[in-house]
Amino acid sequence: MTDRLPQTLRSALAARFGDRFQTGQAIRDQHAATTTWIAPQPPDAVVMAQSTAEVAALVGLCAEVGVPVIPFGTGTSLEGQVNAPMGGVCVDLSPMNRVLAVHQDDMDAVVQPGVTRTALNAHLRDTGLFFPLDPGADASLGGMASTRASGTTAVRYGTMREVVLALEAVMPDGSVIRTGSRARKSAAGYDLTRLLVGAEGTLGVITELTLRLQPQPEAVRALSVSFPTVRAACETVILALQSAVPLARIELLDATSVGAVNARSGVGLPESPLLLLEFHGSPTAIAEAQESFRLIAVDNEGSGFRAASTTEERNRLWKARHDLFWAISALRPGSRPISTDVCVPVSWLADCITQAEAAVAARGLIAPIAGHVGDGNFHHQILVDPLDEAENARAAEYVGWLNDLAISMGGTCTGEHGIGQGKRRYLEREAGAGIRHMAAIKAALDPKGIMNPGKILPSEA
Amino acid sequence: MTDRLPQTLRSALAARFGDRFQTGQAIRDQHAATTTWIAPQPPDAVVMAQSTAEVAALVGLCAEVGVPVIPFGTGTSLEGQVNAPMGGVCVDLSPMNRVLAVHQDDMDAVVQPGVTRTALNAHLRDTGLFFPLDPGADASLGGMASTRASGTTAVRYGTMREVVLALEAVMPDGSVIRTGSRARKSAAGYDLTRLLVGAEGTLGVITELTLRLQPQPEAVRALSVSFPTVRAACETVILALQSAVPLARIELLDATSVGAVNARSGVGLPESPLLLLEFHGSPTAIAEAQESFRLIAVDNEGSGFRAASTTEERNRLWKARHDLFWAISALRPGSRPISTDVCVPVSWLADCITQAEAAVAARGLIAPIAGHVGDGNFHHQILVDPLDEAENARAAEYVGWLNDLAISMGGTCTGEHGIGQGKRRYLEREAGAGIRHMAAIKAALDPKGIMNPGKILPSEA
Repeated sequence: MTDRLPQTLRSALAARFGDRFQTGQAIRDQHAATTTWIAPQPPDAVVMAQSTAEVAALVGLCAEVGVPVIPFGTGTSLEGQVNAPMGGVCVDLSPMNRVLAVHQDDMDAVVQPGVTRTALNAHLRDTGLFFPLDPGADASLGGMASTRASGTTAVRYGTMREVVLALEAVMPDGSVIRTGSRARKSAAGYDLTRLLVGAEGTLGVITELTLRLQPQPEAVRALSVSFPTVRAACETVILALQSAVPLARIELLDATSVGAVNARSGVGLPESPLLLLEFHGSPTAIAEAQESFRLIAVDNEGSGFRAASTTEERNRLWKARHDLFWAISALRPGSRPISTDVCVPVSWLADCITQAEAAVAARGLIAPIAGHVGDGNFHHQILVDPLDEAENARAAEYVGWLNDLAISMGGTCTGEHGIGQGKRRYLEREAGAGIRHMAAIKAALDPKGIMNPGKILPSEA
Repeated sequence: MTDRLPQTLRSALAARFGDRFQTGQAIRDQHAATTTWIAPQPPDAVVMAQSTAEVAALVGLCAEVGVPVIPFGTGTSLEGQVNAPMGGVCVDLSPMNRVLAVHQDDMDAVVQPGVTRTALNAHLRDTGLFFPLDPGADASLGGMASTRASGTTAVRYGTMREVVLALEAVMPDGSVIRTGSRARKSAAGYDLTRLLVGAEGTLGVITELTLRLQPQPEAVRALSVSFPTVRAACETVILALQSAVPLARIELLDATSVGAVNARSGVGLPESPLLLLEFHGSPTAIAEAQESFRLIAVDNEGSGFRAASTTEERNRLWKARHDLFWAISALRPGSRPISTDVCVPVSWLADCITQAEAAVAARGLIAPIAGHVGDGNFHHQILVDPLDEAENARAAEYVGWLNDLAISMGGTCTGEHGIGQGKRRYLEREAGAGIRHMAAIKAALDPKGIMNPGKILPSEA
């Protein structure tokens, strides 16, 4: 235990939370950044919170003495969002894991923040409804809201920005507010819901979410198509979207990623850019959409079409995507993956990826690309030798170069990973004068600066 | 001219804007609330702004002396949003009416705030794209963003909350910021875009918008169906949405509204609740959707199906909806319509409308209902005798009762009209402790309180 926690606070937390207030090194380490390349910075203590009242009590106690509060879901964020650079108390929300209500007629669910997306979908199994967002990790829904997560289905179902109807949150002064309502839309005042979504816990702790659900599609079909170039794949997607072909997922793997998958799983795909698609709808609508897409793809030199209707076939086809992280990691055993993402207008995507691949090659890096093409969003896993300082520096320089490139193309420094610690300097470039207004909001709502400090805003803001 | 405008400001504005700075009574009156029942409160002066730089100069000059700035688009807002209760300078953005760019591959457009939705769609005519939101009035897009407008197509295409990708805005200190980007999604920092959307000009003046467009549907078909009760109509819509039947518009007219349309246009519709629907898609998909809907409607006692595919047939079918305002007004010649809206979870809509109809009858009011059923949003036109104070008081009491009812059902006091002056007291009830945080944001971004004062927040907040 460091001395950053005042004894008064330590005693108060121990009295309030008993053995759910923990200060052991192991649990503190477990709550520092785990899936990111950013060095872990453990909190001084961890509290396992069981209710909104407990979170409010915790925040109130920390506010009194100006100690930081760091909200924690599953620890799967990628930019150091759960690090504690200034110490403080991590509030682990995983015990708040109840689905509080499912309103079938309204197609919404009210959940606690520790419910994960797969847990929610398991709960919904017999309702005919599902929660469509899939960021890859089995993240908590509170964490997904806080980082404005999305993933493979955003092209059809939107991001957390679109699917969160209402929130309950503990604000930095310990007060509890409710934002939004279960109504589908509202013109009632400032959009506090959208302000808390993506705020990464810097403006308050989300303690309850009301989420839009979707009807389970009557049928699902998957399709994979190879292309000679990234540009041909992107052109196909642009034309399909312009033609209103209904697509539920549109994933791109570059040739390096396909090679990684082949090496791991022996699926024998052509080692050229690959699109993986999913169609949701009635069998008639899907058949029509698939044929429309096929015609556009053929016009753009698409080949090697493979379709799948049953769950087993689909999973086999999508194995390339699902195994990608491990397949890529296996390209260079012992390496550490630096994960980053950018998002550009889709018309710029081919240029962005092509320039990125050249820049990666010029720097002698290994950095396969996989993207949510329909949104213009793509991910890199840059595989670096953790002990090679020069290579790490080249990778860091490359990430900066890529972020600047995306911003210069009218895009954003992150489509879905968030800012955390890792992208603060890029947010500053992207937001320009807007940073000052973000800082003003932060100062107004959190005058003591206790909520997840050192994230999103540059320290000088 | 009142003496609320300091002479220094008057001289500076005259020097900067020449004859586009106007203080005549007629033009001031034209810029006070025009389409609302709220009494007009004209500004002290009007400036016709032609550029962002001009808006920034205007706001800067007003900020120096603490004089209010009231942004104005087309004046079609319904809750007194353009009134000037504390005087000040109205900035009329209608001269900023250029479409700056259309990016066909990205399906977005960059527009100045004075472009109206029909002007944008006229500009897009040959692109295969369109801007889908239709709030009824030919509002300016800056005004639609500021009031978080939506309308008949929101069930399919979302509201201004969803379709605004990026903004340029002049903030209360005269600085110009850009929020968001042309990327389809972003996890980069606080969502200033969504904070300005729906802020009704109280946090800044929107001077440019980047908007998502949609591909023009291959085909459009309309359908009308009568139901014995509002509940049967609502049940049909709930089941259709749960069954993922793709619907682009779902409008409900209550029996009084249908009667009004019959009286005006002689269309001879059964005087019972009516659903008007529109399907967008391929002919195959539309045929399938229409048949799925028909089966669900028949199960819920729907009858009198009428379909239309050509534009002329569709317009004839939708005439009932398009003429509704005039048809309703004609029910009571010389009356003044008090327009209000609420929005509830769709499962509560039948209860809400049924209770509303009973409450209207109990008060001896005439107040037909039309709703965007898919969103749980409906509108009232309460027809009152402007000279009958008792009736006006009953109407005002009824509006309060209805807002409380909607909030108690988990809904919101306004689905798409906004708060303005008219709904401040209801927002206070709806937002609870959140009001304090809205006020903190307002104070942080607009410490002098010059941006459209007297709107959204209760005066004591």
